[in-house]
Amino acid sequence: MKNPLSSDFVIGFLGAGQLARMSALQAFRYGMQVAVFSDRPENEPVQFMTPHSVSGSFDDVESMLDFAKKCDVITLENEFIDSTVLEKLRERSGTPIFPSPESFRLIENKLIEKQTFEAAGIPVTPYKLIRKKEDIVQFGEEYGWPYLLKSSKGGYDGYGNETVKNAEDAEHAFKKLGGEKGHDILAEAFADFTHELAVQVARNETGHVVYPCCETVQKNHICVAVKSPAPVSENIQKQAQDLALKATEAIDGKGIFAFEFFLTTDGRLLLNESAPRPHNSGHYTIEGCITSQFENHVRAVCGLPLGSSEMIRPAAVMINLLGTHNRNAVVENATDGMIETDTHLHSYGKLESKPGRKMAHFTMLGDDLEITYRRATELTNSIEI
Amino acid sequence: MKNPLSSDFVIGFLGAGQLARMSALQAFRYGMQVAVFSDRPENEPVQFMTPHSVSGSFDDVESMLDFAKKCDVITLENEFIDSTVLEKLRERSGTPIFPSPESFRLIENKLIEKQTFEAAGIPVTPYKLIRKKEDIVQFGEEYGWPYLLKSSKGGYDGYGNETVKNAEDAEHAFKKLGGEKGHDILAEAFADFTHELAVQVARNETGHVVYPCCETVQKNHICVAVKSPAPVSENIQKQAQDLALKATEAIDGKGIFAFEFFLTTDGRLLLNESAPRPHNSGHYTIEGCITSQFENHVRAVCGLPLGSSEMIRPAAVMINLLGTHNRNAVVENATDGMIETDTHLHSYGKLESKPGRKMAHFTMLGDDLEITYRRATELTNSIEI
Repeated sequence: MKNPLSSDFVIGFLGAGQLARMSALQAFRYGMQVAVFSDRPENEPVQFMTPHSVSGSFDDVESMLDFAKKCDVITLENEFIDSTVLEKLRERSGTPIFPSPESFRLIENKLIEKQTFEAAGIPVTPYKLIRKKEDIVQFGEEYGWPYLLKSSKGGYDGYGNETVKNAEDAEHAFKKLGGEKGHDILAEAFADFTHELAVQVARNETGHVVYPCCETVQKNHICVAVKSPAPVSENIQKQAQDLALKATEAIDGKGIFAFEFFLTTDGRLLLNESAPRPHNSGHYTIEGCITSQFENHVRAVCGLPLGSSEMIRPAAVMINLLGTHNRNAVVENATDGMIETDTHLHSYGKLESKPGRKMAHFTMLGDDLEITYRRATELTNSIEI
Repeated sequence: MKNPLSSDFVIGFLGAGQLARMSALQAFRYGMQVAVFSDRPENEPVQFMTPHSVSGSFDDVESMLDFAKKCDVITLENEFIDSTVLEKLRERSGTPIFPSPESFRLIENKLIEKQTFEAAGIPVTPYKLIRKKEDIVQFGEEYGWPYLLKSSKGGYDGYGNETVKNAEDAEHAFKKLGGEKGHDILAEAFADFTHELAVQVARNETGHVVYPCCETVQKNHICVAVKSPAPVSENIQKQAQDLALKATEAIDGKGIFAFEFFLTTDGRLLLNESAPRPHNSGHYTIEGCITSQFENHVRAVCGLPLGSSEMIRPAAVMINLLGTHNRNAVVENATDGMIETDTHLHSYGKLESKPGRKMAHFTMLGDDLEITYRRATELTNSIEI
């Protein structure tokens, strides 16, 4: 790869949402050019940020080829593309892709993901591939009701997941998730947990950097806030960081990765989900850490040395600003937050808002986590989008 | 003006260089769209960052009209456009322009600028408009040789300035600067100074924010480094900040402004130059202050409340990385700096390097100014571009 600090170096993003947008802002900071391939025709966040924008299908290597040939390196912002497509794209274009298709293959399917991490000695929630209807009842009897049914590919933010309380529920969900059509459906036991934790890891051939262990606050399976460092013991934080690094190594990851854990009521960490990309749990790192997850994302996939993940203040809180109305996007009542010291607004440039859609976020830094969390929540409560 | 936190809000930049680029990155952070009008056909830093790029002449209102009508607000990144052009553009497009043509008119011409600030009680270096050859000698006899001849419009980074040691020098320079063709030429006495200082001020209808007083280290009339806060007494820092605010108020400035001062050997502050835009002396604010000059630039011209200019560490040093070769731009030997804690690289995406051209910069934060300055200088000494 040529020196990524050349001004004609082009980093390509597969996907044009807010994660690619925030990474692209860092790429621009290094003087790079940004190209984007989107599976949507227009008006996606990154499409407003570059003259090099192409639309097509994530299933169609042919439609991606011109884009790929223009790029010096390609990276992803979501999991909606198949590793076999990535592999063909790399082969036909000659352009390196990181995280690599080989790494991606080990986590794109939830069954293989769990097997990969289990094999590396990382505890995961109990699970089983559901092959036939009888399996549904058997899993409930073995691990208790309710439990989760998940499609093994393509789920996020609770989509593709169904909580099932009994056999009838489960059969209905199995059908809804496409089990009868042959989609792989996974049963997963509910973990009794006190906290949901997350850790980001950046890694490439120059080394690795592990971010602080943070807590994700979820509401209806959507992350609404992140507290960093997580209000758990240093020992648990360290364990989560070690497991996250181990998981990154298990897939030989090159790029930025995020790992979500349950801290169970009996004090164990269970790996819940992984993401081969910047993650909502790491947005606080933009102002909260010396080097953000987005900057290390760009560095990692370009083979540049990684920057420090140290926090610059004792506490950081990120609040997701979800859409409140069906309308053209506009952030209202945000000015109180903008004048509050050490409070930072990010809006993603999505043209249309709808209730629950991730539209923007606020990060507040402070000295005390709970005070900062309370202040941040109060400041953002009145915001409408 | 509509709410600037609408995702279809368009901020327009007149000029497509690194100053507009760094402001545009902040506009994107707020979800805005960015449009740019450049007087160069292509390959300018901001042109790689938006699908909304137009080229034309800064003298031709007609060529700017489509651009202007697309924008919700327009701002500038340089002084190469005439205030009468700005005024016509605003009138014909209906789009607000900040800083306003009225503010700009008071500083675009060095003579009027000095008169404006003098009238506001701000000390400036002794000067005189040269109307005829005899004035040249008279000024030298009154204020001593050498002194400076400056064209009253269009100079920057030492261009448009000539140091004259005697009458013969002066006549030659007068001719070179276009004095015989009727260009206004200003004579300016040399100030004996110990430090060159700078202060940025953001101001709009919601209030104002004054940045710390920093020192600019100059070499051949080009800023090579900035130290913040300036290694001068707190009293002097405060005086410079007060004068900078007074100067901003004197032109009723709305936007971000920078003011450069001489601290004379006898302890007086003289206003040297002003800029109605983000300034090289304020690049350190990106990582060094809670809200950068670029973020407050965007906030100020959009009518948003301004953010804190407080420094987040006791010391910040910015090193300009000037081009070292005539070649395609590539930053070499920068990786040592990238792994140094709290050291931040910015490259401007200019495709072509040439010796002395401003290509990139590094900011290093620390606890002690001189130690940080030494470390930053050492780290960047080996960089080639």
